[in-house]
Amino acid sequence: MSRKLVVIALGGNAIKQADEKGTTEEQMKNVDTAAKQIAKIAKSGYEVVITHGNGPQAGSLLIQQEEASSLVPPQTLTVIGAMTQGQIGWMFQNRLAFHLQAEGVDMPVCSIVTQVEVSSDDPDFKDPSKPVGPFYTESDAKKYSSEKGWIVKEAKPGVEKGWRRVVPSPEPISIVEERAINSLIEKDIIVIASGGGGIPVEKSSDGSWTGVDAVIDKDRAGFKLSQAVKADKFMILTDVENVYVNFNKPDQKALEEITLSEAQVYLDEGQFLAGSMGPKVEACMRFVKWSGREAIITSLNSALAALNGETGTRIKA
Amino acid sequence: MSRKLVVIALGGNAIKQADEKGTTEEQMKNVDTAAKQIAKIAKSGYEVVITHGNGPQAGSLLIQQEEASSLVPPQTLTVIGAMTQGQIGWMFQNRLAFHLQAEGVDMPVCSIVTQVEVSSDDPDFKDPSKPVGPFYTESDAKKYSSEKGWIVKEAKPGVEKGWRRVVPSPEPISIVEERAINSLIEKDIIVIASGGGGIPVEKSSDGSWTGVDAVIDKDRAGFKLSQAVKADKFMILTDVENVYVNFNKPDQKALEEITLSEAQVYLDEGQFLAGSMGPKVEACMRFVKWSGREAIITSLNSALAALNGETGTRIKA
Repeated sequence: MSRKLVVIALGGNAIKQADEKGTTEEQMKNVDTAAKQIAKIAKSGYEVVITHGNGPQAGSLLIQQEEASSLVPPQTLTVIGAMTQGQIGWMFQNRLAFHLQAEGVDMPVCSIVTQVEVSSDDPDFKDPSKPVGPFYTESDAKKYSSEKGWIVKEAKPGVEKGWRRVVPSPEPISIVEERAINSLIEKDIIVIASGGGGIPVEKSSDGSWTGVDAVIDKDRAGFKLSQAVKADKFMILTDVENVYVNFNKPDQKALEEITLSEAQVYLDEGQFLAGSMGPKVEACMRFVKWSGREAIITSLNSALAALNGETGTRIKA
Repeated sequence: MSRKLVVIALGGNAIKQADEKGTTEEQMKNVDTAAKQIAKIAKSGYEVVITHGNGPQAGSLLIQQEEASSLVPPQTLTVIGAMTQGQIGWMFQNRLAFHLQAEGVDMPVCSIVTQVEVSSDDPDFKDPSKPVGPFYTESDAKKYSSEKGWIVKEAKPGVEKGWRRVVPSPEPISIVEERAINSLIEKDIIVIASGGGGIPVEKSSDGSWTGVDAVIDKDRAGFKLSQAVKADKFMILTDVENVYVNFNKPDQKALEEITLSEAQVYLDEGQFLAGSMGPKVEACMRFVKWSGREAIITSLNSALAALNGETGTRIKA
C-alpha cells in the first residue's frame, strides 16, 4: 500500500436527509451520491477508509422498538449501533463498489463491525449529553423518564424545539478491531469501519469487552480510527463547504487554511456550535496535534478539491 | 495460514431460542455458549470461519417495522439482512474474542458485511418457499396479502400451525466479498461472514449489484462460503447430535459416517424434512461433491468431538 491514506467521516444526515422519510430507496440514493465522490478520491490515488454517522437510522430503530415493545423486547443501544453498522455499511459497500468499477479502480470494499473502547469513568455517564431518538413534548418526555428511567433534556433552545432522551457520549479510547482493519488496508481493500461512532465497549475485569449503553461521537471516533490506521489526512464531510466564524453576522468569514493555534482561538471564543461544528473542529484539531498532518472539514461535493488544497477548511500544524 | 480451515454454520435459533423473548442479554448468553465451543475448536488447531442464521432476529425486525409503519418506512429484506449481520456479527465477535483469549489463542475476530449473488431467474421467485416473520391466522394472512402484496402460505401442516408470509429463497451463486474474507483469513483473523445467508444481490446490466428482496438459505450460502475460502471441512451445527433416518419410528437410526451415495439414497427416500434437515444434508452433500472432503452435521456441544471423528453425522466422498 503506497497510496496516501485518508479517513473520511460522513454524517448520518447525509444518508437520511431531514426532509425525507428514510425509505431504503431514498437512503441508497443518498449513499450513491456520496459513493460517487469517494470513488473519485480513490481514483485520484488515495487509499480511503470511511466512517459514518447513524443518528437518523438509530432514531428510526428506537421508534420501531418503542412501537413494538409489547411484542418484541427492545434491544440495547449497542445492538442498535451494530444494526446500523450493518445497514449503512452494506449500502456504502454496495454503491462504492459500483462507482469504483466505473472509475476503473480495482479495490474491493468491505464493512467491518467495529467496537470502540470507552471507560465508564467518563464524566458523560454522570451528565449525559447526546440526544437520541425523536423529539417529545415536555410532558411526554417527563412521562417516559419516569416510566423507562430515561434521562431527558430540553433540546437546544432557539435551535431545536422540544425535549429528547439523552444518553452518555463517552470519549473513544481505542478501536478494538484495529488489527483486522489494518490487514484489509494492507491488501488495498477500502474499509468502512466504526460506523455510528462504533459500538461502545468497556474492558471488564475478566478481560472481556462489555457493551456499554452509550453513543460515541462519530467524529471523535473517526479521529481514533485515523490514529489506528495511521492516516495521512482526516476529512469530515458535512453540509457546508467551509467552517465559518462570526456565523450569520455582518463580518461572517469562511475559514480556509488555518493553523492549530488559530483554530484554538476560535474554539475558545465559542465560534462553533456544541453538538454540531464544535466536535468536528475538535476532532480535526486532535488529528493535527497527534499527526502534524492536515485535517479538513468541507462538503461532500468539495471533498476532492479540498484534498487538493483548493477549497474547504483545512487545519494545519 | 497453515491450520486446517473449517466453516461452521450456526442456526439463528441457537441465538434466540424458541422459549425466550429475545432480549439482548438472552441472545448474548446463547452466543457466549456457542463462542465457548468455537474457541475450543480454534484452540485445537483449526482456523475457523463462522456463518449464522438470522430467522428469529429478522422476524423481530419485521414485527417492529410493521408496528411502526405509520411513523417509519419499513426497510427492505436486504436491509433487514444487513442489520442482523451487524447485530449477530457483533455478539459473536465480542464473545468469541473473550473465549479465545481465555483459551490462549491470539486470533482477532471480525464480522464482514456480506453480499451473496443470486439470479432473478431462480424458480423460487415464481413460487416463493421461505417463511419469514410471525405466524398469522388464515384470515389475517389473507388480509395482509391483499393489503401489502405479500405471498402467504399455510405453515407445514402437522408440524407448525398457522399461516406465514413467504419470500423467495434463491440459490446462492457466489460470495461478493470473497477477496476481503480471504485477506483476513490469510492474516489468521477469524471471520464471521454471510450471516443470515448473506444479503441477496443480483448483477445489473450496468455492472452494479442490486439488492433483491429475498432470503438465502444460510446452509446453502455456508457451502458457497466454504468454496470461497477453500475450506477443509464444512460443519453445520443444529439442535441434534446426529441426523436420523426413520425418525420417530421403531427402526429410527442415528447416522454416523456415511458416504455421499448413502446420503443421496436417504435424501431420495424423503428421510429429511424440507426446510429443516433436508437443506442441511443437501448443503453438506454439495460440499463433499465439490471438495472430496468431509462435511459434518452435529450439535453445538459435540462440535469438537465430531471434528475429531468421534460423533455427529459425517458425510464423506
